[in-house]
Amino acid sequence: MAADITESVPESPWWGWAPFTPGGVLSDGTRAVLAERLGVDPKAKVQPPPAEVTAADLPDSTLGADALGALAEAAGTGTVSQDPAIRARHAAGKHTPDLLRQRAGTPLAVPDAVVSPGSTAEVAAIIAACGAHDIAIVPFGGGSSVVGGVTPLRGGHASVIALDLTRLNALVSLNEIDRTATFEPGIRGPEVEHALAARGYTLGHIPQSHQQATLGGYAATRSAGQASTGYGAIADLITGVTLETPEGPLVLGGRAPSSAAGPDLKHLVVGSEGTIGVITSVTVAVRPRVTEKTYGAWAFPSFEAGAEALRALAQDGAKGDLPDVCRLSDEEETELTLAQTDGTAVRLLRRWLRARGIETPALLLGVWEGTDSDTKRRHKRAVKILKAHGAVSTTTAPAEAWDRGRFSSPRLRDELLTIGVMVDTLETAASWTKLPETHTAVAEAIRAALAGGPTGSESKPAAVQGHISHVYRNGASLYYTFIAAAEDDMVAQYERVKGAANAAILASGATITHHHAVGTEHAAMLPDEIGELGVRVLRAVKQELDPAGIMNPGKLV
Amino acid sequence: MAADITESVPESPWWGWAPFTPGGVLSDGTRAVLAERLGVDPKAKVQPPPAEVTAADLPDSTLGADALGALAEAAGTGTVSQDPAIRARHAAGKHTPDLLRQRAGTPLAVPDAVVSPGSTAEVAAIIAACGAHDIAIVPFGGGSSVVGGVTPLRGGHASVIALDLTRLNALVSLNEIDRTATFEPGIRGPEVEHALAARGYTLGHIPQSHQQATLGGYAATRSAGQASTGYGAIADLITGVTLETPEGPLVLGGRAPSSAAGPDLKHLVVGSEGTIGVITSVTVAVRPRVTEKTYGAWAFPSFEAGAEALRALAQDGAKGDLPDVCRLSDEEETELTLAQTDGTAVRLLRRWLRARGIETPALLLGVWEGTDSDTKRRHKRAVKILKAHGAVSTTTAPAEAWDRGRFSSPRLRDELLTIGVMVDTLETAASWTKLPETHTAVAEAIRAALAGGPTGSESKPAAVQGHISHVYRNGASLYYTFIAAAEDDMVAQYERVKGAANAAILASGATITHHHAVGTEHAAMLPDEIGELGVRVLRAVKQELDPAGIMNPGKLV
Repeated sequence: MAADITESVPESPWWGWAPFTPGGVLSDGTRAVLAERLGVDPKAKVQPPPAEVTAADLPDSTLGADALGALAEAAGTGTVSQDPAIRARHAAGKHTPDLLRQRAGTPLAVPDAVVSPGSTAEVAAIIAACGAHDIAIVPFGGGSSVVGGVTPLRGGHASVIALDLTRLNALVSLNEIDRTATFEPGIRGPEVEHALAARGYTLGHIPQSHQQATLGGYAATRSAGQASTGYGAIADLITGVTLETPEGPLVLGGRAPSSAAGPDLKHLVVGSEGTIGVITSVTVAVRPRVTEKTYGAWAFPSFEAGAEALRALAQDGAKGDLPDVCRLSDEEETELTLAQTDGTAVRLLRRWLRARGIETPALLLGVWEGTDSDTKRRHKRAVKILKAHGAVSTTTAPAEAWDRGRFSSPRLRDELLTIGVMVDTLETAASWTKLPETHTAVAEAIRAALAGGPTGSESKPAAVQGHISHVYRNGASLYYTFIAAAEDDMVAQYERVKGAANAAILASGATITHHHAVGTEHAAMLPDEIGELGVRVLRAVKQELDPAGIMNPGKLV
Repeated sequence: MAADITESVPESPWWGWAPFTPGGVLSDGTRAVLAERLGVDPKAKVQPPPAEVTAADLPDSTLGADALGALAEAAGTGTVSQDPAIRARHAAGKHTPDLLRQRAGTPLAVPDAVVSPGSTAEVAAIIAACGAHDIAIVPFGGGSSVVGGVTPLRGGHASVIALDLTRLNALVSLNEIDRTATFEPGIRGPEVEHALAARGYTLGHIPQSHQQATLGGYAATRSAGQASTGYGAIADLITGVTLETPEGPLVLGGRAPSSAAGPDLKHLVVGSEGTIGVITSVTVAVRPRVTEKTYGAWAFPSFEAGAEALRALAQDGAKGDLPDVCRLSDEEETELTLAQTDGTAVRLLRRWLRARGIETPALLLGVWEGTDSDTKRRHKRAVKILKAHGAVSTTTAPAEAWDRGRFSSPRLRDELLTIGVMVDTLETAASWTKLPETHTAVAEAIRAALAGGPTGSESKPAAVQGHISHVYRNGASLYYTFIAAAEDDMVAQYERVKGAANAAILASGATITHHHAVGTEHAAMLPDEIGELGVRVLRAVKQELDPAGIMNPGKLV
């Protein structure tokens, strides 16, 4: 059974991704790998997540009665909350250093209030009230940012609110002739798919954060989903967007499927990360609901050989040959995956691959999805190209297992942090030419940074695994997971690794982020990506739409 | 034989599209249609194009010796020309009212000089010299704008130059691993395809203006090509772009095939129409050179039925089923096409269609192109869907004839103007929901405007024909050609028609331009398209990059 993309889950707790499971969610295989390869005893150091916060844990709100009154009036049918638990829940996204601080009880920067409009019309009124009372606004959807995108920074203003958009979660309209659907911004991934499935459609934009993230958040962060190789990233799916800015609404798209009426301003809103206004509606292209899935898994003698095969498939295959979900693990990720699923099947697989000259396999998973037999035809054509490039078929079990567990990694992070393991992910993308070098350089930088702990400390074993998960004609994404025994100062450990990876990414000429966005985490690197002049352009746009600078200060630019 | 897309042709003359052919290029069939349906005697009123201009025809240059010296120094290996013929050639694009004025000998607004840099490095120096001497700059590529995009407006500055980029016509690099090619901006369509064909590749961006237009011009105008249904429009093909602005270079893209590093600023350059800087390099995705073409032609009982079939193909067909070139004529365009090719074959066709209940056919042409047998498979699958939606097969001859004559229409316009026939084209795009109504409303508006001539004049018969030429999942383009006997004031006649069509397009909720861009012609309608606030955003970007306002004043915003 594949994961059900229409199934809603409870909202994330303030300190992590999912409610705490006392017994843990680690498999025996994972526990064994942690113990044997990373020297971590999964039972030695269990630190359950912190209790609920109380008012005593939080700084006082800076909002006076006037400002609160104005917010309450503007919010209309919505709410203005100063409840400690609600403020704490909006203090951060799911950036690992933030989770570490929350778990460590480090005093939190929290919003002075959480305002949750009940209608999109109220958003404009709230922005006006904030302008009048010198209040910064942090638009808040699923709170799943891993780059500090929802950190409640004041930016020199008197106060800061989180603008929680999750009550704005309606399907506004579905146009079955145009195959487009308009949603309010705060609808979460599963609710999008549930609303569309009821009418026979899918958006197909399913990032790992799907269960928590909102459609407005996807648009604001220029998101890519796990199936973006097939469906395109969110920028490709959005046909129209409305942005409420301090200077009024910006209504873009919707007149035609394509236009030459000057620059396409939709692309200024997509990726704007709340810094120029609040997205109040998103119109997306939809497709028929998926009824057929074909899975495949192959081994290659090396990650580079697998990447070459994917390049051939992307460049010389027919349109649609590429699987909708396409994931090539490097040798280390493959090895760790196999190690966690030890047993007869894996032993047989290793023997089968060894007999074909593959000692350190790189595993490729593919999912072709659609509505009819064409799904199988696409798969068949792709297999031909993959095999011509050295692919050795394996059971499709790994692809099906991936589909079942596609949303589980953030929950695994919770668990690893609970048992004192340092874990996080980071990502980039590069052209095919630069891909092999970038892959190696970034992995080595992470490995070296993990090894180079504080003076006098013992170097601990680490796992640094990578994969490609988005394939394009001109290049591909690279996604890394690093796991190591925790140092005393885990935030410092994280920052050392991230800094080294960033430097390696820039030196390789790759992008600073393929799909995690900029937030606070990558803001210093944005000039490397788009130049100082590009940053000036973004600032000029912000100055025009948000002259007082109240929209999500300190992010992006 | 299809038209050779790698074949260069002579540069357009200053008064029209192609050198004058004394015998004319009209077929006997076209002459018969003009005479019988539009009451035009093709021999009654032949006005050969005007002679070459001389210095006496032009206003004096406003450039003093200082400014000319600075330009010459900045141009370095390039040239600065004040030759009357060269100034006249850069006085306008190929906008019909401009051609009418040129043919009528109306005094021309011309650039004070034409500066043609010999290297991209010189572009920055020329911009600096213009800034220092209060000179406006009109970037000039193929000069094929039909919306006044290269009109030499001063915008309050002392002087204006045309910056002719056609010496910057090199293939800078071809990366066969990434399948990307970087070109200088002034390379024309055939030279792009010639350079790529020599290495086994194609860009596949082939607008009707291909033989004159430049790659930089495609980028600047957010162009779509005749095969954009298959290849995507230029915005989809560009992977990187460099813009030289008065504030320095903006270097965008090229790090990765996709990114989430804030808004994608490439989309601010694409469609910027020279108003924020000069595009100095364009990197595009390339594909294997076309070696196979499969043609198809079908008749539908009506334009609406054909549009419904295309919608089904776009929405429910497999990826790639849509033909790369896809063109559905409405009933009037089909009728006029058949009338011009009268003969036994057409009589048989009419009988064949009538026997199948089709009295007023709407003709669909398709070209599937690629490198292997998949081209035929895609065609076959598409036919199945088209037939299920009422398509009746005809000979493929009309599709092949289209491919042979794909670049001929602008030449036909020259010829019709020469014999005193009013002719022009205009275009829009709409979502599928709005398409049928938009199609009718715009055609009727054009027809009514043509009929409503100056008081007292006799209403003359007119042809108003339309087609879809770009198909998307969410909608399609609409392209109109109108032909009528000329009134005494042809510019007024044109403006009456264009104004009526524009009003109908706006009232229908369609886009003001699908692929002709904004220029001067559509600038007044841009606020309808992107809102006053959207225009303010574009102005803010311009202010940041071009604070003195010297870049192509009076265009776009």
